[in-house]
Amino acid sequence: MTLFEKYPVSITNSLSGKKELFTPLKSPFVGLYSCGPTVYNEVHLGNLRTFTAFDVVYRYLTHIGYKVRYVRNITDAGHLTNDAGEGVDRIEESAKLEQLEPMEIVQKYTFSFHEVCRIFNILPPSIEPTATGHIVEQIEMVKKILANGYAYEVNGSVYFDVRKFMEKYKYGELSGRNIDELLEGTRELDRQDEKRHAVDFAIWKAVSPNHIQRWPSPWGEGIPGWHLECSAMGTKYLGEQFDIHGGGMDLKFPHHECEIAQSIGAYGKAPVRYWMHANMLTVNGEKMSKSKGNSFLPRELFTGSHPLLAKAYSPMAVRFFMLQSHYSSTLDFSNEALQAAEKGYKKLSNALGTIKKLDHPGGAGKQDEELLKLIDEAYRNMSDDFNTAKTLAVLFEMSSRINDIKSGNYRLTDLDADAFQKFKSAYITFMEDVLGLQEEGSQNQELLDGVIRVMIELRKKARTDRNYALSDKIRDDLKALGVQLMDGKDGEISYTIE
Amino acid sequence: MTLFEKYPVSITNSLSGKKELFTPLKSPFVGLYSCGPTVYNEVHLGNLRTFTAFDVVYRYLTHIGYKVRYVRNITDAGHLTNDAGEGVDRIEESAKLEQLEPMEIVQKYTFSFHEVCRIFNILPPSIEPTATGHIVEQIEMVKKILANGYAYEVNGSVYFDVRKFMEKYKYGELSGRNIDELLEGTRELDRQDEKRHAVDFAIWKAVSPNHIQRWPSPWGEGIPGWHLECSAMGTKYLGEQFDIHGGGMDLKFPHHECEIAQSIGAYGKAPVRYWMHANMLTVNGEKMSKSKGNSFLPRELFTGSHPLLAKAYSPMAVRFFMLQSHYSSTLDFSNEALQAAEKGYKKLSNALGTIKKLDHPGGAGKQDEELLKLIDEAYRNMSDDFNTAKTLAVLFEMSSRINDIKSGNYRLTDLDADAFQKFKSAYITFMEDVLGLQEEGSQNQELLDGVIRVMIELRKKARTDRNYALSDKIRDDLKALGVQLMDGKDGEISYTIE
Repeated sequence: MTLFEKYPVSITNSLSGKKELFTPLKSPFVGLYSCGPTVYNEVHLGNLRTFTAFDVVYRYLTHIGYKVRYVRNITDAGHLTNDAGEGVDRIEESAKLEQLEPMEIVQKYTFSFHEVCRIFNILPPSIEPTATGHIVEQIEMVKKILANGYAYEVNGSVYFDVRKFMEKYKYGELSGRNIDELLEGTRELDRQDEKRHAVDFAIWKAVSPNHIQRWPSPWGEGIPGWHLECSAMGTKYLGEQFDIHGGGMDLKFPHHECEIAQSIGAYGKAPVRYWMHANMLTVNGEKMSKSKGNSFLPRELFTGSHPLLAKAYSPMAVRFFMLQSHYSSTLDFSNEALQAAEKGYKKLSNALGTIKKLDHPGGAGKQDEELLKLIDEAYRNMSDDFNTAKTLAVLFEMSSRINDIKSGNYRLTDLDADAFQKFKSAYITFMEDVLGLQEEGSQNQELLDGVIRVMIELRKKARTDRNYALSDKIRDDLKALGVQLMDGKDGEISYTIE
Repeated sequence: MTLFEKYPVSITNSLSGKKELFTPLKSPFVGLYSCGPTVYNEVHLGNLRTFTAFDVVYRYLTHIGYKVRYVRNITDAGHLTNDAGEGVDRIEESAKLEQLEPMEIVQKYTFSFHEVCRIFNILPPSIEPTATGHIVEQIEMVKKILANGYAYEVNGSVYFDVRKFMEKYKYGELSGRNIDELLEGTRELDRQDEKRHAVDFAIWKAVSPNHIQRWPSPWGEGIPGWHLECSAMGTKYLGEQFDIHGGGMDLKFPHHECEIAQSIGAYGKAPVRYWMHANMLTVNGEKMSKSKGNSFLPRELFTGSHPLLAKAYSPMAVRFFMLQSHYSSTLDFSNEALQAAEKGYKKLSNALGTIKKLDHPGGAGKQDEELLKLIDEAYRNMSDDFNTAKTLAVLFEMSSRINDIKSGNYRLTDLDADAFQKFKSAYITFMEDVLGLQEEGSQNQELLDGVIRVMIELRKKARTDRNYALSDKIRDDLKALGVQLMDGKDGEISYTIE
């Protein structure tokens, strides 16, 4: 029996608004798509939350035995400043501002995005396709939609015909928008006269020759529509219909709604069975935005270089903070919350360091039901719509047991060797593999540990020699450096680093 | 006067075989292209040498004031196992072996390549285009070559017509091959009957529907020719003619020769003004190859996990080792050479740590001509065809001066403050910016340093107290951990870490 059979996963499907049992199309294979960054500037903390949420989905599904193909794209063309596929091209605009070729902008921010992922321990996806890498596939898909009658061409641009689509299919189901109202609405944007209705959107957009990024197409030179990119790449690597599609809440409408319409328009079927949306990150109760000055970058978090930040926070503390709430709840950032997360993470991380060094002497003690029950709970919580908040609560309980074992309140010999091994392995797995919470600062750690151990031995000897002046000096000097010595019951001395 | 005017660069141009003065087409802009990896397995040490060589070219040209656009591609399609554009598709083959979709192979090894670059401090290029991201551009280029009469189509594949090309242009100039002989040669490969001559090469290759990677084209479904990728991407980002094209010596023929022919065939002009080739890496005097078992991966170097490696070597020691010889010379890997490099790197790196902490008290001493002369020499060496070997020799001289200053043999107050500042800044710049040699292991370094300083103080006190047993114990315990204490003339104790 695989873990995914023992702990069946349920997912809150944005399509139904309900928690549904997850049954992949071709178990044990799972197709997972999540919308990646538009690489025209640095990802902000809100993006990071979304990427972390789907990183955990990918990690957990893989851990319980699914063969997951995880596709997370890079949008490096075609993303215009407004969602209707109008306005300024984001990458072209940054290129002008920074006096770089658009692909230099793409390279700069793709690199920076990958750095952020590495620092926050967000795994690389199975495939990371780019929009510019799939121009051919996007043109082919536009051709299909045109051939099926759900799009029209005007002056070299091709628009999706929402009204025509609605004669046969529903539009707006995912976001619950009242599209009839939108259709009747009179709000028309400048230069939008090409479109038959305001809700129509570009799937191919003609551009003038001074637009650096442009490709030849049957309709003249242009760029692909932003919504179309994800449809073309999702279809190419996961098929015309696949299991899970994720993204930030702000992408529900129109981006994901458009993806659904495009796929139905091209292939006659809904592309995705489970839609998942990660909720927003607020800062001190307010929506993050550049104009409010409350928007900061991941990098600013661990350097502390933003007026709103009381101090620097480590990447793992931030990751812990994000996992402390369910992905579908809003998450509010504040210095207090981050400092609490820092303490919480340190507690779990210390227990991780402890249990890695603990070994059972062997032999059968009592079968410890409580420890095994905790493992079971951790799985149930994760399988329950990836509830990282509840899973962390279980890990805290586990860490208390680990500390009890360490302090001798709970003796290893009273425990069953096999039960202890399961417990140890589960704690390490949930921390590192499932939640991606690593121990921090392991570089030079061994040597540092060695040198501190030498000092502890010196101090022990000083005490045996009744040289209390020396033993106190060692303790105080280390304390001044942030190294706290702790005397154990058995005369053993351990230490923590602030 | 800019640095590149003061120290004009000369480059050994593979086209002429001679050292030539470097004059960019549109100074201060420089277009630099180097062939990147085919991401179907992990890059090996020989690749790493090439990437390091052009990383230094990019770094130095940028440092002396050029605005460099550095393009290094990723080959993620179309690279067949033999250079004539026949045989098995490398990425498809790995995909079958590893039971992954070709783009999963691409993602896996692109990620691993980027990790290796990060670890060896190889900078990301300005643009890192992929072959799959430029299918449209490649098809357009094939069309142009066909229209100009330098290619022919057979069964959905398009071949470059070398004999036709030679009626008007030269082929083989870069590599010095006698193409007439090749043309008359009878060596024909299996399934090559489509080609008119053995030297012809595919610029578009028809593939069967069971080939996963394939794109529609005017000639049917297929894949781009490997040689064509670099031509299309170089042209797109650097223009029809650009300054420098680099790569490994093994790419001279046919890859670079084909690039030249394709560009002339499409645009009527030679694409590159300065061709540079990094030479091969041998192992204990023999060519690296998988069959000989003497081929190891960068990762194996710093874990020491290969039978040929006596120990693990740090990434910076390996980088130093590669820079110790000129890029155009063969470089022989041996444990002895690596261990010597390790010592050399450590000497320079220690001096780097030292000079960063040294500050001149201010004031005018004698203007130290010798120090300024060393800076001048470093520039002359780098401008002389990027001679990193000679530059390192200068840095060794500089490091001796730094040690003299540290030990007090050379007193800062005897030096002119301004001259010292120039010297300090030059040493740091050449080490970190130009050669990319960082100090290693700076994480936790501060705390470690603090704890060791506390122990040194304890030892001093023990000696003052005539407690020689304690003072010896501290020295011996630290030594056992690899920390060597050194007594200075003035009673000061310093330390080194093995």
